[in-house]
Amino acid sequence: MSLIVMKFGGSSVGTTERMGRVAQRIIDKKLQGHKVIVVVSAMGDTTDDLIDKANEINEKPPAREMDMLLTTGEQISVALLSMAIHKLGHEAKSYTGWQAGIVTEDVHSKARISDISPDRIFNALEEGNIVIVAGFQGMTDRGEITTLGRGGSDTTAVALAAAIKADVCEIYTDVDGIYSTDPRVVKCARKLPAISYDEMLELAHLGAAVLHPRAVEYAKHYNVNLVVRSSFTNNEGTLVKEEAEMEQGVVVRGIAFDKNVARISVLGVDDTPGVLAKMFGALADNEIDVDIIVQNGVQDGKADFSFTVSSSDRARAFDVLASIKSSVPYRETTFEEDLVKVSIVGAGMVSNPGVAAKMFKAISDIGVNIIMVSTSEIKLSCVIASDPLTDVVRALHTAYGLDSSDTAFVGGPSDRR
Amino acid sequence: MSLIVMKFGGSSVGTTERMGRVAQRIIDKKLQGHKVIVVVSAMGDTTDDLIDKANEINEKPPAREMDMLLTTGEQISVALLSMAIHKLGHEAKSYTGWQAGIVTEDVHSKARISDISPDRIFNALEEGNIVIVAGFQGMTDRGEITTLGRGGSDTTAVALAAAIKADVCEIYTDVDGIYSTDPRVVKCARKLPAISYDEMLELAHLGAAVLHPRAVEYAKHYNVNLVVRSSFTNNEGTLVKEEAEMEQGVVVRGIAFDKNVARISVLGVDDTPGVLAKMFGALADNEIDVDIIVQNGVQDGKADFSFTVSSSDRARAFDVLASIKSSVPYRETTFEEDLVKVSIVGAGMVSNPGVAAKMFKAISDIGVNIIMVSTSEIKLSCVIASDPLTDVVRALHTAYGLDSSDTAFVGGPSDRR
Repeated sequence: MSLIVMKFGGSSVGTTERMGRVAQRIIDKKLQGHKVIVVVSAMGDTTDDLIDKANEINEKPPAREMDMLLTTGEQISVALLSMAIHKLGHEAKSYTGWQAGIVTEDVHSKARISDISPDRIFNALEEGNIVIVAGFQGMTDRGEITTLGRGGSDTTAVALAAAIKADVCEIYTDVDGIYSTDPRVVKCARKLPAISYDEMLELAHLGAAVLHPRAVEYAKHYNVNLVVRSSFTNNEGTLVKEEAEMEQGVVVRGIAFDKNVARISVLGVDDTPGVLAKMFGALADNEIDVDIIVQNGVQDGKADFSFTVSSSDRARAFDVLASIKSSVPYRETTFEEDLVKVSIVGAGMVSNPGVAAKMFKAISDIGVNIIMVSTSEIKLSCVIASDPLTDVVRALHTAYGLDSSDTAFVGGPSDRR
Repeated sequence: MSLIVMKFGGSSVGTTERMGRVAQRIIDKKLQGHKVIVVVSAMGDTTDDLIDKANEINEKPPAREMDMLLTTGEQISVALLSMAIHKLGHEAKSYTGWQAGIVTEDVHSKARISDISPDRIFNALEEGNIVIVAGFQGMTDRGEITTLGRGGSDTTAVALAAAIKADVCEIYTDVDGIYSTDPRVVKCARKLPAISYDEMLELAHLGAAVLHPRAVEYAKHYNVNLVVRSSFTNNEGTLVKEEAEMEQGVVVRGIAFDKNVARISVLGVDDTPGVLAKMFGALADNEIDVDIIVQNGVQDGKADFSFTVSSSDRARAFDVLASIKSSVPYRETTFEEDLVKVSIVGAGMVSNPGVAAKMFKAISDIGVNIIMVSTSEIKLSCVIASDPLTDVVRALHTAYGLDSSDTAFVGGPSDRR
């Protein structure tokens, strides 16, 4: 008998009919002899509807009250899912985040879990119940209701799995695992049987929206075995685990890409100490995430910088730069839009110096110009023009031997929360 | 400066626009220099919508899970009302029942409040906040979420007022006070400036749906000054308080009526000990509320009984009687439908023996036959045919000197919860 955490996203329980199918799936797991804890997100569009209602009343609602409001979405889900399980003749008990003992920092809208007291959950399991816990929410030690921010339900599931020392934490979603790249772009994308925490983290940060990075970090920290699998099929999923146990010989595990990249260049900046700190400090103060930064060398005491931001932040970044021109003098700013960042990720890259060269060659063979490059121990990213993106991803997928003969399963609408 | 509890029902906050008006009303009270605690019900049809959703999934949902589900309705209300108050530039904090320290018995769907720990509310008031508490809900000492049943938000408001020793508990609703009778029936019905707890209890039980009887009982027990007034006008309301302080000389305070009464007669019952207990025990086991019971005397060892039930329970009551015929033998059952119960209520009735005679005469003067009579210390009820109900109520209203020259305000849809 194992102790298993199952997490279902909002689209998996989006209708009462889907709720019934999820209930059956949970019961099947229990009938296999396991103890089961379920974490659920709010149903379908519930959260968006609540946000709309709040904005009708107050376009800048206090974060504390927003947390009070939004946590009802998950509370509705857990109650209904419990009813669906009872309907099928099994015992279940639902719990809010605070009832499940999930304690967070004293921060609203994006709190981190600081502690979990799982006694009550253990007792309910001992009594033979399927335990259902509201995702995305917790309570501070002063009794204030908090939410965990985007990806919060994944984090709840992983944190609970760590606290109760679950054998596995299964994340049910609308895709049936982690793929070597986006199966909508490359038909012969390969479903990975396993991937390391670090590789998953890089892929998550690089735009593969299946698992939230914070949940993966949590899993890595507490060494929780994660499985990503489909709510709609019985296909085997992808196991996310410690690198040491991984299959050997794989250099590149997957290819990620992020559309909507813009490059901004600041030309003729005085090369004096503190210039970079001021410039990027001002951007950070305005909550503009800067990704890759490149300095092109210094000439005549003047430097040129380039950096990338999300396309949607480009105009705001320009405004910020204009506003600090008096304290950080520069000659001019330019930008390029419609760029993409393509990345190869793999723990085996560290000891394989030829990996980068192969990427550059594959891209240039298609006649695409590489605009910027960024590296880490286990990933290599190139910023290129967005136009022939599909060709580039396919070429890289083939070059690193990732092509599969199977056709990938591609699920319904995205199931993030 | 006073400490004031304001309670708003579901229709008072049924739309975001009404929510804004309620917010302004609360702020006005605070600006008058008072400390304000607000209790709110779920918005408009929220509770019914949640019940529908539950029934789609499970037509017999467990009471515990139903409480988990329904309490989200009030949590949504308090969060949005707090946002509306912030929007108008004032500080407010919303609290669920458990956060407000409302502890209940360990029963689901109709728990009674057993204790309130108002420290957190006091602290929030001290910090200058308007405090907003979700009505209708509490928590057991094991941390289970419970609801208080029908009229629960009224009870929350009164119980909170008792716990914090509030100067007054104002119940805002869709009528602007307690009337001498239903203003929709008698145009010259008089709004009562004051009424005693006991009189209000009788009126509430007799079908005047403005205040829930349990809330009135609670107010009586803890001597909480209650005011019933309109959410939509600034008219003075009705004060519900201890009888000792009431104006003297009023014999009949008001006239209530309950339509949908059916009378069932059981004829030729063996007059042996325990027969009544068996008969009414079986009805109670089937959750059929029996109101007036009359025995018509015994002849040849056989007795005839009559009793009233709600029209909607009549058929079921007949089935129950048929099912126990072997253990409680009787000759036959008959029934009459389309009856009403008309009641006069007033603390002054105790010492005025002529009151009953006046009622009987007023009814017979219209040519209406009195079918059954029931009395208590402060009320007298007659069951009559429903047909000339309006005439009867008007005649009684005039006979007891209750007619007013003002025209009553009659509000929108009923605002019960």
